[in-house]
Amino acid sequence: MLIFSYATDALMARIGLDADDREQSGNSLFTLEAHINYLHEVKLGTEVWVQTQILGFDRKRLHVYHSLHRAGFDEVLAASEQMLLHVDLAGPRSALFSERSIELLQGLVDEQQDLPLADFVARVMGLNSKP
Amino acid sequence: MLIFSYATDALMARIGLDADDREQSGNSLFTLEAHINYLHEVKLGTEVWVQTQILGFDRKRLHVYHSLHRAGFDEVLAASEQMLLHVDLAGPRSALFSERSIELLQGLVDEQQDLPLADFVARVMGLNSKP
Repeated sequence: MLIFSYATDALMARIGLDADDREQSGNSLFTLEAHINYLHEVKLGTEVWVQTQILGFDRKRLHVYHSLHRAGFDEVLAASEQMLLHVDLAGPRSALFSERSIELLQGLVDEQQDLPLADFVARVMGLNSKP
Repeated sequence: MLIFSYATDALMARIGLDADDREQSGNSLFTLEAHINYLHEVKLGTEVWVQTQILGFDRKRLHVYHSLHRAGFDEVLAASEQMLLHVDLAGPRSALFSERSIELLQGLVDEQQDLPLADFVARVMGLNSKP
């Protein structure tokens, strides 16, 4: 879903990985795995917002959660859980986050304590699970 | 991933849900949930093929698995598990599969006994899981 790509771009800009940073370092984020739930129809032209949460990170990986909402409402219309890998594009090969990125990530984690629980994570699909 | 959308379209054509069928019945498939694993880089212009398996279906839902491979090779480059819902677009609301679709689905299931196991299904993401 394109809007979640924009949300990941916005997150990257806040952790020292905007376009300029990426050009200078030669590093970027690759998506290893993504899970998307489409919960409600959203008509073209609807004003929406995305809430992004960091579910966790280590020295190379970032586990994030995006939820899509109608402007002015909290109900979740769609959600995406993603595992992203920090990559040196010259390889491409995995690369450690810079100390600055780690600090910025930790700052965001510290700020997000009041966010609502990420509902659509760790889901296993199956015909016996609730639709 | 666009190529997996094409694979779903190809599957729809084999279960009585091609463009003509959809126009006539007013029914189609909506994606409820999708899980994608990006395993290996695929350079632009690489010739690829997609293996599609039906993991299960009930009267309204279809659980499918696509895996992406380089032409002539079996190694999985990317994989996607999806839960699709049969929908009457006039609602939109969920709708029962036609008897013809059910028969065609069962025929495909009967044909796919020799396919390799779908590896990237029922996966739970996490920093403690193997990358």
